Amino acid sequence: MGRAGRERLVVIGGDAAGMSAASQARRLRGPDELEIVAFERTDFTSYSACGIPYWVGGDVDDRDRLIARGPREHRERGIDLRLRTEVTELDVDGRRVRVRDQESGAESWTGYDKLVIATGARPVRPPLPGIDAPGVHGVQTLDDGQALLDTLNGSPGRRAVVVGAGYIGVEMAEALLKRGYGVTVLNRGEQPMSTLDPDMGRLVHEAMDGLGITTVGGTEVTKVLTGEDGRVRAVATEDAEYPADVVVLGMGVEPETTLARAAGLPVGAYGGLLTDLTMRVRGREDVWAGGDCVEVLDLVSGRERHIPLGTHANKHGQVIGANVAGDYGTFPGVVGTAVSKVCSLEIARTGLRERDAEAVGLRFVTVTVESTSRAGYYPGAAPMTVKMLAERRSGRLLGVQIVGREGAAKRVDIAAVALTARMTVEQVAALDLGYAPPFSPVWDPVQVAARKAVTAVRRAG
Amino acid sequence: MGRAGRERLVVIGGDAAGMSAASQARRLRGPDELEIVAFERTDFTSYSACGIPYWVGGDVDDRDRLIARGPREHRERGIDLRLRTEVTELDVDGRRVRVRDQESGAESWTGYDKLVIATGARPVRPPLPGIDAPGVHGVQTLDDGQALLDTLNGSPGRRAVVVGAGYIGVEMAEALLKRGYGVTVLNRGEQPMSTLDPDMGRLVHEAMDGLGITTVGGTEVTKVLTGEDGRVRAVATEDAEYPADVVVLGMGVEPETTLARAAGLPVGAYGGLLTDLTMRVRGREDVWAGGDCVEVLDLVSGRERHIPLGTHANKHGQVIGANVAGDYGTFPGVVGTAVSKVCSLEIARTGLRERDAEAVGLRFVTVTVESTSRAGYYPGAAPMTVKMLAERRSGRLLGVQIVGREGAAKRVDIAAVALTARMTVEQVAALDLGYAPPFSPVWDPVQVAARKAVTAVRRAG
Repeated sequence: MGRAGRERLVVIGGDAAGMSAASQARRLRGPDELEIVAFERTDFTSYSACGIPYWVGGDVDDRDRLIARGPREHRERGIDLRLRTEVTELDVDGRRVRVRDQESGAESWTGYDKLVIATGARPVRPPLPGIDAPGVHGVQTLDDGQALLDTLNGSPGRRAVVVGAGYIGVEMAEALLKRGYGVTVLNRGEQPMSTLDPDMGRLVHEAMDGLGITTVGGTEVTKVLTGEDGRVRAVATEDAEYPADVVVLGMGVEPETTLARAAGLPVGAYGGLLTDLTMRVRGREDVWAGGDCVEVLDLVSGRERHIPLGTHANKHGQVIGANVAGDYGTFPGVVGTAVSKVCSLEIARTGLRERDAEAVGLRFVTVTVESTSRAGYYPGAAPMTVKMLAERRSGRLLGVQIVGREGAAKRVDIAAVALTARMTVEQVAALDLGYAPPFSPVWDPVQVAARKAVTAVRRAG
Repeated sequence: MGRAGRERLVVIGGDAAGMSAASQARRLRGPDELEIVAFERTDFTSYSACGIPYWVGGDVDDRDRLIARGPREHRERGIDLRLRTEVTELDVDGRRVRVRDQESGAESWTGYDKLVIATGARPVRPPLPGIDAPGVHGVQTLDDGQALLDTLNGSPGRRAVVVGAGYIGVEMAEALLKRGYGVTVLNRGEQPMSTLDPDMGRLVHEAMDGLGITTVGGTEVTKVLTGEDGRVRAVATEDAEYPADVVVLGMGVEPETTLARAAGLPVGAYGGLLTDLTMRVRGREDVWAGGDCVEVLDLVSGRERHIPLGTHANKHGQVIGANVAGDYGTFPGVVGTAVSKVCSLEIARTGLRERDAEAVGLRFVTVTVESTSRAGYYPGAAPMTVKMLAERRSGRLLGVQIVGREGAAKRVDIAAVALTARMTVEQVAALDLGYAPPFSPVWDPVQVAARKAVTAVRRAG
């Protein structure tokens, strides 16, 4: 348990949440007060997994640019970082973890006073025949990204299949397109981007068509076919085969909570750890958790959700670091904001989709409007479609989805803040937003939608 | 007045506020119920004065593109629009206005049941020697813009002086630069953009220097010098002369309330009409006012301010139109959001500057941070500086100013919504904003500032 009078903090996982927590705790408590040990399975710390598609696509030329803070920097700050060291068991009653040195294979128990679980998420990877064949790649870690790049650089192929059309799927479609591949995206849902309602997903589908990306919806991959050399040669669905020189899996992720569940810690409907507002694991005094392995409170629906996203992981880490150091911080929850792009197409969403609102019993109206990113007469004014959900009677804003070109994505922040403040669409329509011809029409597109929603709420009665 | 059972609405001023009010009233009440007469001095209706710099600069090639809705469209919608007709007197007790036909010079009284005053603002134009010389231009109306373009197209000159370094001044500096002029901006304040604190104005100054625009601060124009042909040849200050082939005046505007004041209607400290939340002129049952001729409630300071801006004028018009038609709407107030640009430099502000906060007795902390528009490793990540004011003790957000490049300006909307919701900087730091490498660092620049402000509030005690 460390030296007398000194507490020992153990952190499992060396990426955003874990190392933010460690760094923040170190900022507040010196090495004489708090020993900090962090275990990380890989060779990397504090990297931007969200940046991998842009590295693969060539927008970012060097892997190391994705690393916000390397092992040496963490160690210089007084964090005892153990790379290639895996935690294999968790004994929360005994306040100890079993760790395995991947080089030597040696395992041993080590104690803690306070524990931070930041084990992240693991990609969904169904046990399909051929899925482990050379040429089939995930894009979760920097090693994954490097392996994919090695395939792209080493293979003469020109056909790529991406399985899954969520954020990772569409971003990888762009990356492969930029690398000169003919890209086919196979998607279980009818439309890409299931984080949008299908009517907005259809706009993404159409834009991807326009970019030359083939998107096949409503299809389930059944196996990966390999050639005589054992490498991937095609992806099969129930009724078709798609030739492929390279396959990228973007089928989403699940919270990595194997250890935590084995130790009896509480997980929610999505398999993520459940915490209180200070990110302390429910029912435990000395265990905190954050990042992609936890569920977070959705402030709009009042339900827990699993939203793996670097920005949340960083915020969790800050909060955890403050609390384990004896200071105070809370993570109030999320509203479900996400932005992405496929080439010049920008995609954004926040709050509830129709099915989310229905699931919690909310009655609502929806409106969809077309507007532009700038005054219509200003050069570069780009069209965008804004869909808005508002609660019946109250007029409370429930969600916004935007699909457009330059200037579309970050407009969703207006709605994100308004959702957090539980504003009505009438209040949104009255907001004092930045207006000048190069930046917005005289009514911001979000407000054009809000005005229409005001009328729709009134009509619905 | 008017036919039996039919009310008569008179609107003074055919630009954004007036014609929005007329259009909204017409939408809600047909011609059998409500007669609508609108008087406009010029030949133009519903045009974007904010677009004039971009027309002059060549970004917009056709004047008519700045006209959102022309006279014919208004008339087709059943609005009796009288162009080149000036209201010369207002008799509010007698419910009538005196109008003069500019062609014939004929004057007559005409009655109303309800009146909308939307007389706009007039440019500040000090009575300096030579200020009316050929080659000296305002940029308030489309006619002003055309006259300036005629000068630019007709004159072989290459030197331009802009008087004033507010929004119009810096936007016109860009326009003249684009037209190939050497541009000098003369400004009364030490730094351009007095709607920012001087430390942020200095960044604008430096960026303008970098663009080749000479900005002279702390100087007062004393006269305009003319050549033998009577045209402008230079602008003189107390201690220098600046040669000029063309001069543009951008010294701000004042509410145009001559008529209203003569009629005894209430005006505020800035000379703008004072209204209630429905935009009804205080103390009057049957008179509404909106647009650049009114003062608006600043929700942050609780004081009235004069903020001439097309987006507010449009909102006022909507509210007035609803109320005069017997429906209901309110304009809750503003937070003082404004965005602008000079070439690629983006400038934004919302809420209170230091002097505004001091003027209402608020104690506050300020922080300034450097961040980027995108993840640091993503191509095109552009630097931006964010300054934030927060109230001591409460931590309430009071204001944000941003100077940067692409992606800087509209970020101010995050703060604008947060100000409206009276959020603390701690709440701002916890917001769920759109994050992806092409759109934002993992902490949005506004949140980087908010985090620093949280610490500053705590330290200030």
